Amino acid sequence: MANEPSMESASAVGRALDVLFADGKSIRFEDCWLRDHCRCSSCYHSDTFQRAHHILDIPDATILSFEFDKKKIDVVWSDNHTSTYTAEFLSKFDYKTWKESRRLKPILWHGSIHDKISVVPVEKFLHSVEGAKHVFQSLLDYGVALVEGVGVSLEATEIVCKALGGVQHTIFGGMWQFTTRADHADTAYTNLPLAAHNDNTYFTEAAGLQILHCLEHKNGTGGETILVDGFHGALELKKENPEDFKFLSSFNLEAEYIEDGHHHTYSAPVIRIDNESQELVQIRFNVYDRAPMAFKNSEECRSYYRSLRNLSKYYQDPNNQWRFKLKPGTVMIMDNFRVLHGRTGFSGSRVLCGSYVARSDWLDKARALGLIQ
Amino acid sequence: MANEPSMESASAVGRALDVLFADGKSIRFEDCWLRDHCRCSSCYHSDTFQRAHHILDIPDATILSFEFDKKKIDVVWSDNHTSTYTAEFLSKFDYKTWKESRRLKPILWHGSIHDKISVVPVEKFLHSVEGAKHVFQSLLDYGVALVEGVGVSLEATEIVCKALGGVQHTIFGGMWQFTTRADHADTAYTNLPLAAHNDNTYFTEAAGLQILHCLEHKNGTGGETILVDGFHGALELKKENPEDFKFLSSFNLEAEYIEDGHHHTYSAPVIRIDNESQELVQIRFNVYDRAPMAFKNSEECRSYYRSLRNLSKYYQDPNNQWRFKLKPGTVMIMDNFRVLHGRTGFSGSRVLCGSYVARSDWLDKARALGLIQ
Repeated sequence: MANEPSMESASAVGRALDVLFADGKSIRFEDCWLRDHCRCSSCYHSDTFQRAHHILDIPDATILSFEFDKKKIDVVWSDNHTSTYTAEFLSKFDYKTWKESRRLKPILWHGSIHDKISVVPVEKFLHSVEGAKHVFQSLLDYGVALVEGVGVSLEATEIVCKALGGVQHTIFGGMWQFTTRADHADTAYTNLPLAAHNDNTYFTEAAGLQILHCLEHKNGTGGETILVDGFHGALELKKENPEDFKFLSSFNLEAEYIEDGHHHTYSAPVIRIDNESQELVQIRFNVYDRAPMAFKNSEECRSYYRSLRNLSKYYQDPNNQWRFKLKPGTVMIMDNFRVLHGRTGFSGSRVLCGSYVARSDWLDKARALGLIQ
Repeated sequence: MANEPSMESASAVGRALDVLFADGKSIRFEDCWLRDHCRCSSCYHSDTFQRAHHILDIPDATILSFEFDKKKIDVVWSDNHTSTYTAEFLSKFDYKTWKESRRLKPILWHGSIHDKISVVPVEKFLHSVEGAKHVFQSLLDYGVALVEGVGVSLEATEIVCKALGGVQHTIFGGMWQFTTRADHADTAYTNLPLAAHNDNTYFTEAAGLQILHCLEHKNGTGGETILVDGFHGALELKKENPEDFKFLSSFNLEAEYIEDGHHHTYSAPVIRIDNESQELVQIRFNVYDRAPMAFKNSEECRSYYRSLRNLSKYYQDPNNQWRFKLKPGTVMIMDNFRVLHGRTGFSGSRVLCGSYVARSDWLDKARALGLIQ
């Protein structure tokens, strides 16, 4: 490293230490924080990255004395314990840098993104760090990635799903495969168009990724995939109809899924924003799975319809969508917390397979690759 | 039914219909709501319980005329569509009753609850609706249930886990079995005491249920299970230290889990309350898995330590805990969103197996049994 963290000065201020770093950063460390972060072998398991003490067993000690040089600070505590903190360790806890390092930075989009997202050959994805990084970076940036050259089978698709973080098991199974026929009845699995939506709005946590692989489309036309950036839509709504954004980010909309022996339901805002940072966390948009709801009053009821329609208008506008034809051999991966998916109507025989991957599991992979903190 | 819903009167008020029911309830139905909830075969798939129209394709029509009797209302719309609504259907949407029907009603507890929770023989749980209801009602009420007479093996335990909603697959596997061998980078894989905690605070969604079955404890003592009601603790904190409750329900505490190839991390409040209802949703308390964090200022840092310590004091107080010895054959099930678990230190050879069940999956089971809406 060109600039290894180095300390210029350290001084006691009340129960805290103020540390000035060579790069100009100044950080205040409270004594309770310092004692909690003692990295000696009796306070910290360096193999499990866990503290050895319960928070109630950490002595409420004060700093008796300290000594520092550019590279470390030695602290002697009022209970005679001693702790050493390196400049490298301490410098990580500059609030602004630390907070910023944890922020996801999605690149908003609308329309076609075929020249922006990663399209990675399956062997490269599975067997090289570089390939894996391309796929996960594309998911972090755009919420979409494609893996090509995959064997046209459920088994070959499963290998890709496992490398994305592992197959999530839901009431729909682990890996699933579905066929639709032109003469099918009027159920959810039809050849009718499906407007862009998020899956699993009725689960307490929706699937993190959705993986789709078209294994076959014979004797017919249509069935184009539709993708749209849910985050971009929400932020456009915020600009144009701020009261709708406010409603959809605070009102708990109930979604439901009912079949014999199963009844999933969950109530949460359509637009989930982080309480602290106010950043977008999740879009939970599915007009089909809305549960019938009672409303507090006329205003709430009318706000529900007005705001859902206004957000729908964005998502339904072809100018905002990316439409393309999935072909056997190319696996599509999308971030179901952000990107909405749908399809145009079709004729002929179409077979798709795929699975879900839990959000925690794919972010774990991205983090292990060093792409996010 | 003694009192089938019956309508006394219906009148147009602006674009809405006011309906007075025989039991004295009065409900206002906006025209947009009514049209969205038309249950005719072209508007609604009664087999999938889904609407047939996208929200943008529902005509923004007004009510031309309506006729009612005690049992139903027929509406003619400005686009000549007609809809029929039964009194039974409409009466469900009284706001207060509807909202209340969706509220979970945990029974708070502290100390031993061995005479309160359900202890159900495995055959009864697996093969009778009554047995299943006992187990799930106990989980809804107290966050704990026991199933006894289970075969002392991972395979027999798995059958119980599947009946609870299905085995959740995480980085720890599906069904897991552990001794004091350090298979994972975690204090759980030692013989040290483990203070009461929630699992998976570092996942975007923690496990819904945790299932534990002690298959063997030979040549040693100790290893008592510790359970404590996280909700009761949080509400006691709210009474005694309201500023701590406020801090822990709004501050995003970061938790982490690190092992070779894996890095899970998640930031959310320790006390999760519903934005709308202000009711407790989840406790996310694990002092071991706290990530090192930077703070905005000294006050935030000191609030963090003060509030965590005050909440810890409640959870660590033996008067608030239920302690008992798990025996082979009895499977313990707890709601990991609410109940904290731990153990006392032990000697000898101890083998446990178990798994997680996703929250959506066990609530689905409870809902299919008619225990919750």
